Amino acid sequence: MTLRKPQLLHSFFSLITLTLVLTQSHLKAENPPNIVIIFCDDLGYGDLGVYGHPTIQTPNLDCMAAEGMKFTQFYSANAVCSASRASLLTGRYPPRHGTLGVYFHHHQTGLNPDEITLAEGLKAEGYSTACIGKWHLGHKEEFLPLAQGFDSYLGVPYSNDMAVDPGMSFAKDAIFSEDWSLEKVRSYDLKKNKPPRNLVPLLQGNEVIEFPTDQSLLTKKYTEAALSFISENKDSPFFLYLAQTMPHIPLFASEDFLGKSLRGIYGDTIEEIDWSVGVILDHLKKLKLTDNTLVFFTSDNGPWLSVKLKGGSQGLLRGGKFTTWEGGHRVPAIAWWPGKIEPTVTSEMASTIDLFTTGLSLAGANSPSDRTIDGLDISPLLFGKGPSPRKEFSFYKTNNLQAYRKGGWKIHFKVQKETGGRPGERLETPLLFNLHADPSEQYDQASVHPELVSELSKSLDN
Amino acid sequence: MTLRKPQLLHSFFSLITLTLVLTQSHLKAENPPNIVIIFCDDLGYGDLGVYGHPTIQTPNLDCMAAEGMKFTQFYSANAVCSASRASLLTGRYPPRHGTLGVYFHHHQTGLNPDEITLAEGLKAEGYSTACIGKWHLGHKEEFLPLAQGFDSYLGVPYSNDMAVDPGMSFAKDAIFSEDWSLEKVRSYDLKKNKPPRNLVPLLQGNEVIEFPTDQSLLTKKYTEAALSFISENKDSPFFLYLAQTMPHIPLFASEDFLGKSLRGIYGDTIEEIDWSVGVILDHLKKLKLTDNTLVFFTSDNGPWLSVKLKGGSQGLLRGGKFTTWEGGHRVPAIAWWPGKIEPTVTSEMASTIDLFTTGLSLAGANSPSDRTIDGLDISPLLFGKGPSPRKEFSFYKTNNLQAYRKGGWKIHFKVQKETGGRPGERLETPLLFNLHADPSEQYDQASVHPELVSELSKSLDN
Repeated sequence: MTLRKPQLLHSFFSLITLTLVLTQSHLKAENPPNIVIIFCDDLGYGDLGVYGHPTIQTPNLDCMAAEGMKFTQFYSANAVCSASRASLLTGRYPPRHGTLGVYFHHHQTGLNPDEITLAEGLKAEGYSTACIGKWHLGHKEEFLPLAQGFDSYLGVPYSNDMAVDPGMSFAKDAIFSEDWSLEKVRSYDLKKNKPPRNLVPLLQGNEVIEFPTDQSLLTKKYTEAALSFISENKDSPFFLYLAQTMPHIPLFASEDFLGKSLRGIYGDTIEEIDWSVGVILDHLKKLKLTDNTLVFFTSDNGPWLSVKLKGGSQGLLRGGKFTTWEGGHRVPAIAWWPGKIEPTVTSEMASTIDLFTTGLSLAGANSPSDRTIDGLDISPLLFGKGPSPRKEFSFYKTNNLQAYRKGGWKIHFKVQKETGGRPGERLETPLLFNLHADPSEQYDQASVHPELVSELSKSLDN
Repeated sequence: MTLRKPQLLHSFFSLITLTLVLTQSHLKAENPPNIVIIFCDDLGYGDLGVYGHPTIQTPNLDCMAAEGMKFTQFYSANAVCSASRASLLTGRYPPRHGTLGVYFHHHQTGLNPDEITLAEGLKAEGYSTACIGKWHLGHKEEFLPLAQGFDSYLGVPYSNDMAVDPGMSFAKDAIFSEDWSLEKVRSYDLKKNKPPRNLVPLLQGNEVIEFPTDQSLLTKKYTEAALSFISENKDSPFFLYLAQTMPHIPLFASEDFLGKSLRGIYGDTIEEIDWSVGVILDHLKKLKLTDNTLVFFTSDNGPWLSVKLKGGSQGLLRGGKFTTWEGGHRVPAIAWWPGKIEPTVTSEMASTIDLFTTGLSLAGANSPSDRTIDGLDISPLLFGKGPSPRKEFSFYKTNNLQAYRKGGWKIHFKVQKETGGRPGERLETPLLFNLHADPSEQYDQASVHPELVSELSKSLDN
């Protein structure tokens, strides 16, 4: 598989393509459901009460899990932010859409506008679409949410530890006011050789409405915006992509949560997200939307272990963010749709890329036919009609397949330190783990099952 | 604190002491509740669904936790079998009752009969008492359950990987039949220098009723016996101490569960225990006993890590069985009493030693006044009336205080390898962890908080 570089295509062309691709053969769903995806940033597999954390209290998520489907083998498509988000929205592995890693503040590019996002797909079905929260798929106007299928956007355009791009023309007037002059921002960059942390803009649509934004209020603001969007669209199908900025560093929580968690500020941010989830589910109940709304909660990748207590926990898994160990990819995931999804714990495999295909399927649309879509429709699993169609998963670092899972078996062709860093050389003998029996990837079975090593190694040729 | 060696006192004397000690000042409870303690063997903190295990399915325990109180900071009093069990039953730390480690099959001693067990205490209050399952507090008649306050006993007298003691006079006739001659058993011992594994007797009262017992049927047999005991005593207060043999190695599950868990045989055994819990709770419901029965589920110590996949998982904690790392002592714990215990997740601290004091308190009895009891009455915590009285916990290996916790802080004076083994020398600078923020004991804070090191080191002088 080769890397396709993002191309800057005019959005008009994108729209034509999209219309051609999506309107061929689908059956319009009679009562297409609302779809809400709540996507956390760097939340680890072990960071919620219902996934075993002892001191982070998440009563609303615990309840959501008890009422819905709790996944125990759910994979984010990538172990870093931008690539993970691009895959969620396109249903494709990173080498296909070309967003292979992280977009930094000095990058002038973003998610290839030629990609078809879930928002574009659902919009074509008549959905109202909103992106609230962290975008991180390009901060220039042609890559921002409004250019990628979302009717509205409120949020921080990239990671909250990033700097302002002095070349970010659309934002210049707002950002480089007298208080935060271009010189001042540049002086941070040059003298300290690092971006001015915590100084990120809040965008509404393509406009900066606050700079620097008060990060301690982000979770609250996102939540309020989510409630408003839901209220305004209660009579039409809607797609809400709520991408929390937390618990990515630097960590901030509002006054109501700051200092409240035994876990410290990291726990405060998650407990505030838990509050937010509770408020949103309550709002759906109040508006009597629960019988036609799928809410899916998950995370973009595992915890950032090298920042120590400012990062999260991978629970019993091995490794964290940046890595193709389980702890980098496997994340908490809860699907909630009372009456439609039965209370279940499932150890069936699924991934963020499947949310694209499943979302379109629920809306009665087919997936695009002019490109390879890696996502699968997991609605049979969600609705108790059968197992997950996902039987394999590919773990990429940039455009390299570092590891591959089939059934319960995972093979590693290259490994990294548990905390990240560059991959080592290709292993002469790959590592082989039985993830069902050994979720912590402790006991290499390569020498016991050479036939499996051979079979799974074929994934490198695909 | 000094070690008191077990003394063999006549049980008659014990009874007199008990009567004197317990009848001084207690108020008889009007409607004393039934108490059921389900105690697993080597079940790790991360081994249940509700504590984050991805492939061991425990729907009944998940439900029990959702309906009851799930503890996230609950400590077994010791990291090995016999000491842990002695502490549970006496409410005292090991150096006080003198059962400091594990009784092996060649040991001729057991829990000091002069100790007052929870069974004795409740019996004095008119409870019917049964011990079902693993005893492991001495396999000679004077130490067996019938001599320690239990009206009846069905189970294996020690660990299921132990050998038959050729000197076990009371069992000799039954065990050393022509099939399992003394010579044959001895030949295992001498030639292989290890006991004949899996060849353990099943006792009813003090009599061997099956040898070797079919271990694959133990969970079922224990469960059936538990149901019978509950049925027979439904009109009077009862205390059932159900100490599962599993998931201690060697691992066995019945036909219904064997090969069913994705986790392998280790998971099979836990899924069978989960079944057992479900059946027992259902039975209590059927008999309409739930409004007056406390069921407490927990484990004797953390997982046996050195046996690899035959042992369990400590989840996000550090270390396992045999150690004073969190993974050795912190165990799953669920309290269930519908209508009386609200659905809660608590990160308040509590321990198996508190079950003694709490059990007596619920029965309207005072704890013994002639000796130091380390257990505390956690009923205010259980019933939502206040925090746990437990603010500190002492981690012993034999009679050495290896670590000590106060509030969120834990100090280690000596450490072991995560998998066990002998403790090292006393550390020149102890290790200090903030367990609330750092449950995985990763980030030593001793140099940051020397004042806490000084304060917590005083525990060594007590």
